[in-house]
Amino acid sequence: MDVRPVFFVLGILLSILALAMTLPAVVDAAYGSADWQVFITASAVTLFVGVAMMLTTRSGWSGFTLRQAFLMTTSAWLVIAFFGALPLAFSNLDLSMTDAFFESMSGITTTGSTVIVGLDEAAPGILLWRAILQWLGGIGIIVMALAVLPILQVGGMQIFRVEAFETSEKVLPRAAQMAGEISIVYVGMTFLTAVLLWFAGMNGFDAVAHAMTSIATGGFSTHDASVGYFHQPLIHWVLVVAMILGSIPFVLYLRALRGDALSLTRDSQVRWMISILLISSLLATFWLVKGAHHETLHDAVRHGSFNVVSIMTGTGYASSDFGTWGGFGAALLFVLMFIGGCAGSTTCGIKIFRFQVIYAEAKTQLRKLIQPNGVFIPYYAGKPIPEGVAQSVMGFFFLYGVSFAVLAVCLGLLGLDFTTAISGAATAISNVGPGLGEIIGASGTFKDLPDSAKWLLSAGMLLGRLELFTVMVLFLPAFWRA
Amino acid sequence: MDVRPVFFVLGILLSILALAMTLPAVVDAAYGSADWQVFITASAVTLFVGVAMMLTTRSGWSGFTLRQAFLMTTSAWLVIAFFGALPLAFSNLDLSMTDAFFESMSGITTTGSTVIVGLDEAAPGILLWRAILQWLGGIGIIVMALAVLPILQVGGMQIFRVEAFETSEKVLPRAAQMAGEISIVYVGMTFLTAVLLWFAGMNGFDAVAHAMTSIATGGFSTHDASVGYFHQPLIHWVLVVAMILGSIPFVLYLRALRGDALSLTRDSQVRWMISILLISSLLATFWLVKGAHHETLHDAVRHGSFNVVSIMTGTGYASSDFGTWGGFGAALLFVLMFIGGCAGSTTCGIKIFRFQVIYAEAKTQLRKLIQPNGVFIPYYAGKPIPEGVAQSVMGFFFLYGVSFAVLAVCLGLLGLDFTTAISGAATAISNVGPGLGEIIGASGTFKDLPDSAKWLLSAGMLLGRLELFTVMVLFLPAFWRA
Repeated sequence: MDVRPVFFVLGILLSILALAMTLPAVVDAAYGSADWQVFITASAVTLFVGVAMMLTTRSGWSGFTLRQAFLMTTSAWLVIAFFGALPLAFSNLDLSMTDAFFESMSGITTTGSTVIVGLDEAAPGILLWRAILQWLGGIGIIVMALAVLPILQVGGMQIFRVEAFETSEKVLPRAAQMAGEISIVYVGMTFLTAVLLWFAGMNGFDAVAHAMTSIATGGFSTHDASVGYFHQPLIHWVLVVAMILGSIPFVLYLRALRGDALSLTRDSQVRWMISILLISSLLATFWLVKGAHHETLHDAVRHGSFNVVSIMTGTGYASSDFGTWGGFGAALLFVLMFIGGCAGSTTCGIKIFRFQVIYAEAKTQLRKLIQPNGVFIPYYAGKPIPEGVAQSVMGFFFLYGVSFAVLAVCLGLLGLDFTTAISGAATAISNVGPGLGEIIGASGTFKDLPDSAKWLLSAGMLLGRLELFTVMVLFLPAFWRA
Repeated sequence: MDVRPVFFVLGILLSILALAMTLPAVVDAAYGSADWQVFITASAVTLFVGVAMMLTTRSGWSGFTLRQAFLMTTSAWLVIAFFGALPLAFSNLDLSMTDAFFESMSGITTTGSTVIVGLDEAAPGILLWRAILQWLGGIGIIVMALAVLPILQVGGMQIFRVEAFETSEKVLPRAAQMAGEISIVYVGMTFLTAVLLWFAGMNGFDAVAHAMTSIATGGFSTHDASVGYFHQPLIHWVLVVAMILGSIPFVLYLRALRGDALSLTRDSQVRWMISILLISSLLATFWLVKGAHHETLHDAVRHGSFNVVSIMTGTGYASSDFGTWGGFGAALLFVLMFIGGCAGSTTCGIKIFRFQVIYAEAKTQLRKLIQPNGVFIPYYAGKPIPEGVAQSVMGFFFLYGVSFAVLAVCLGLLGLDFTTAISGAATAISNVGPGLGEIIGASGTFKDLPDSAKWLLSAGMLLGRLELFTVMVLFLPAFWRA
């Protein structure tokens, strides 16, 4: 296989990453933190590697084959996680290489699990860098989901294939154009969220950081207490809206901007997601009111909705310690972790459209049981589901279940307790952030896990972020043979 | 819909149940327990109802329609659970109606979850009755899986369709013949197991009861400490073999008896199951040795294998308190709960063949990702998987996941803690028996759960036992319209 196009794109991505590293350098310099040197050094190293990769591979190839696209996708996330970890490893936080890589992978996959304790006293550069990693990871996955994954036909994503992208040769220019348009929307939303958060009572720095990590449904906060640090209800509500906005297919925003304002409310995936969020929030509120967990009804509604939205969209902020919600809270949040938001957004998890496809399929089968000779066609969003999509989606479900089970059992083998092992596996593979229980729950961190568990969880995050198949094909011998 | 054939079969089944009730009556009378009157009364009531149903519906119909077969299957398990609960409710155990129904449903579905504390002092009639319920439930489901479910095309079971059963009109006579042959094998195996258990050191009564509940992969024991009551290693190993024998498709035994002795080792479902059991037992043994849980290597191997086999086959005995195995043990057993044994046996759970079908499907899809124009055909047991089977299997996976999630969240709403809620949901829907955690784990019982949770769990057992679809179609409006 000719790896030149792969290296070329990796070179571009690393150069962008290097440029992004100068921002925390500037901020640290302004705040008088010595870490600015770390960022400048890391940026220089990354830029050198990136430019070198671009220069040595810039010619002699034209377009991508399918195999190269697969290799590029997985290696992009891996390489960025590695270089993104450099500033974390060499900053005055003194993270081990394992911790730095885990934190960086958690950032670029928009997971939001953290190993850092003492965020409130950390230098602003590091806090900004964590936010930037998630923000870049968010826009990165939107572009991937839009331009690359449908062509790779990963886990039923071909249902979202845009006609202009039919041939893999046009991936790069098309992706660039689409990425440009969506980036503008993404930047605009982040800016708007930051202004609203600032207006609601955050300081400027916190507002920018939380705007970046909420639109990206990432969930890194600038405080150990996560969003629970802020007591203004308005801040929580702004973040709820921002997390939901980040979970909607971004292509719908482009359509809305082109005049089709109703495309958002007409989309069946969005409708399902909002319905599930509403029902779950109501259940959580009911539970909190019944258990007298909060003083006022508004508090119950606020914390119920916030944590439900945060977990289901895979953001992973916590406005209150949902570990104290008891068995119902844990069971509900555990189930929501697997669901996720809409395909084509920044969220991870199984995703709403897959539930729709498989629900349509299951309904068809139930009907067929009664009338074995009847012809029933499963529909998605008013159209018959194309051949092969249902199979892809169901294969995805299966591999999701198996990956979760294997990860959970392995975490158990490393000595983690039951709740930590199974919620850790779920939160990693669905890119949520916190798990359940005392250790990795809303009030804990991943710091005290064994290093081997951190590497396993990092692998789980990558696998979940790239829709399993994209990573798994690399392990097929047939992939490397041809 | 003409319900006469449904009522007719229910009448037959109730009459058999009534006859079975005379056995514990005889035993109680011999042991001098006053409960014999309860069994005689319950038997008389059941026989009266059964015969009345048969007499009033015996003519005017010919054969079953598909709808009638569905209705018959679900109502058979419901009605038997109800009448089977009568002796439990009126015995000197003084169970509430809820507890009696739960125990009876747990018996007839071969689950093995119990609400009774004080088994060691209970009258022999009750202990025998619990064993009989599981034993009848075991042979019942084998016959169903062989004769009825493939015609109903439930969850991919059509892959096991026997040609002679193609038309639903022939179900009854064919089922009767097949049931006869298989019953002989079933009785023979139970007898052999009882003899071996007696030889290994059990008294005659315990040997018969445990033979019945191990071949049926049911898991009711005659002691509160379950099989941990017995300290003879040989007893544990005999039960391991009996549980595995009960998890193999019984049709293979018929083939073996007809001279094709190798059919057992050639069957791919059996091979997969044995492999998974071996790997899991090794993992568990390794874990127990590492954690110094047991004094000798043999003890580690014995308890590791016993509990792995007991949980995966859905039997649900415990030879030691696997609740003390820590996070790994819990995570491993939790995952194994969902797997189950082979289709066509007495086990529940998702079942091995479904994993094989969906693994073949997922492998095909991964290959297709690399070569989108290649033609790849998924195989099961050396033959291409018939059209529609993969969809059925995957629809089953989905509904299994959804049923588990809904049940777990509802149990949480009723106030159960996280581990109890999710392991309770899993153990009910997979007909395993014990759950995880302090309350319903190996050393606990379901006694202290709220009544509402017991009813929910009973519904979960029924749903799991009848392969979801069979019960769910009854809730389709279309089912009742035509």
